[in-house]
Amino acid sequence: MAAPGPLSLNTITVKSLTLSQAAEACARHGIPAICPWRDVVQAAGLANAVRAIRDAGLAVSGLCRGGMFPASDAAGRAAAIEENRRAIAEAHALGAACLVMVVGGLPAGSRDLPGARKMVRDGIAAILEDARAAGVVLALEPLHPMTCADRSVLSTVDQALDLCDEFGDGTGVAIDCYHVWWDPALDKAISRAGQRVKAFHICDWLVPTADLVFDRGMPGDGVIDIAGIWAKLQAAGYAGAVECEILSNRWWKEDPGHVLRVVCERYASVF
Amino acid sequence: MAAPGPLSLNTITVKSLTLSQAAEACARHGIPAICPWRDVVQAAGLANAVRAIRDAGLAVSGLCRGGMFPASDAAGRAAAIEENRRAIAEAHALGAACLVMVVGGLPAGSRDLPGARKMVRDGIAAILEDARAAGVVLALEPLHPMTCADRSVLSTVDQALDLCDEFGDGTGVAIDCYHVWWDPALDKAISRAGQRVKAFHICDWLVPTADLVFDRGMPGDGVIDIAGIWAKLQAAGYAGAVECEILSNRWWKEDPGHVLRVVCERYASVF
Repeated sequence: MAAPGPLSLNTITVKSLTLSQAAEACARHGIPAICPWRDVVQAAGLANAVRAIRDAGLAVSGLCRGGMFPASDAAGRAAAIEENRRAIAEAHALGAACLVMVVGGLPAGSRDLPGARKMVRDGIAAILEDARAAGVVLALEPLHPMTCADRSVLSTVDQALDLCDEFGDGTGVAIDCYHVWWDPALDKAISRAGQRVKAFHICDWLVPTADLVFDRGMPGDGVIDIAGIWAKLQAAGYAGAVECEILSNRWWKEDPGHVLRVVCERYASVF
Repeated sequence: MAAPGPLSLNTITVKSLTLSQAAEACARHGIPAICPWRDVVQAAGLANAVRAIRDAGLAVSGLCRGGMFPASDAAGRAAAIEENRRAIAEAHALGAACLVMVVGGLPAGSRDLPGARKMVRDGIAAILEDARAAGVVLALEPLHPMTCADRSVLSTVDQALDLCDEFGDGTGVAIDCYHVWWDPALDKAISRAGQRVKAFHICDWLVPTADLVFDRGMPGDGVIDIAGIWAKLQAAGYAGAVECEILSNRWWKEDPGHVLRVVCERYASVF
């Protein structure tokens, strides 16, 4: 089996930690990269966040997250675009490999899926020049179809690549195996993506799954062939990090040090 | 808006009723068709089930369900194939418009998704001649990707159509809007399907959704553009029933007569 890319910690995996604590914990556990969420960065202050990550000697595999473009009215959509511009500036300051884009679901009360998808396209178009100017790649992340109503009308890698085809330079794809493992078109889509893959996230699909958002599994505890997906990504030319992102009511109850030990063990065993 | 096809009651919507009770309730509520589950048919006895449905003057839009092919060992797969042969015989006896096929998920403990898909193809191949001989169409039903691990490795309409292309006569597709509404390729897939659509099921996607299996909504209570999907199906040549199938811990607590009144009201209002 081909060696995986360097491990990165998505901070939501240990969400009780501050950014400084998470960065220090990464250094202590030998995790060479981090992907912070914006709320954690903002709680620290951007300059402090940059310093804490640099002091810990970490690469930044991404910033979570931009997107959330659809809204019921023009003011809401404009506010989302402004928020994305701030996210781009933060990603630039952090030296992030990409800004992870969770594009958003249907506006409240709406059944207009094509309309929401158009709001996403319009939103990306509005921020693309800012992203290019800042040297920040917008990594469009397809989310599991069970999140289509409330989080992401972008559901498949092919759909993300259609947007990349449309927008070109400055766009790419973030592939989270949890969201796309089921897709019968996944292998072909990864080949199609080639070097446009800008991030790879891992966690696992548990059987049974008790919650649509907060019951992701530790890699190895579920049914996803993570190594198989990694092999496809590597064959397509991906050479970036393997980012462990686990939203889990079960793991959030554990001591963060224990969680990070298990993350490192599983990183060593699932590939 | 084009008028919808005739309403059919999937018996799991009122799962506390026997088949006779469900058939009589359909007649009383002016519902012209029914789709029974096999356990309900077997509890009544096949001959009694045939008689109860005939006495109530109902068409049979389908029989739920065949499939569930993947298994950990050859004996398990052979048993599944035999079970499907019995389901075909029952569908024939009932004069069902199709046998709805929920193909099955990963075998217990397996991460081999291509392997499970091959078991599904092998299973269909094994029963196809029986289905053709009985004049029973196998309606392959893509299930929502959140069921991929434990219920259906068949996740999209296009994937179902690939199987139809492979197997031809005797196969078709069952489209449940709950399972496929999110799919960016849905419109094209329905056009591709044409008259191979053999069943149309309705219920709704609730926001939030509390359970991956048993929290489906009454049509109109969620975000699915049911009328829009119906229009696409009709344009593709579908002229069959509109079957209301609601697996819901919330609605199962209600009086079945009340549930059926609401089903009829929503059938009249969502299209």
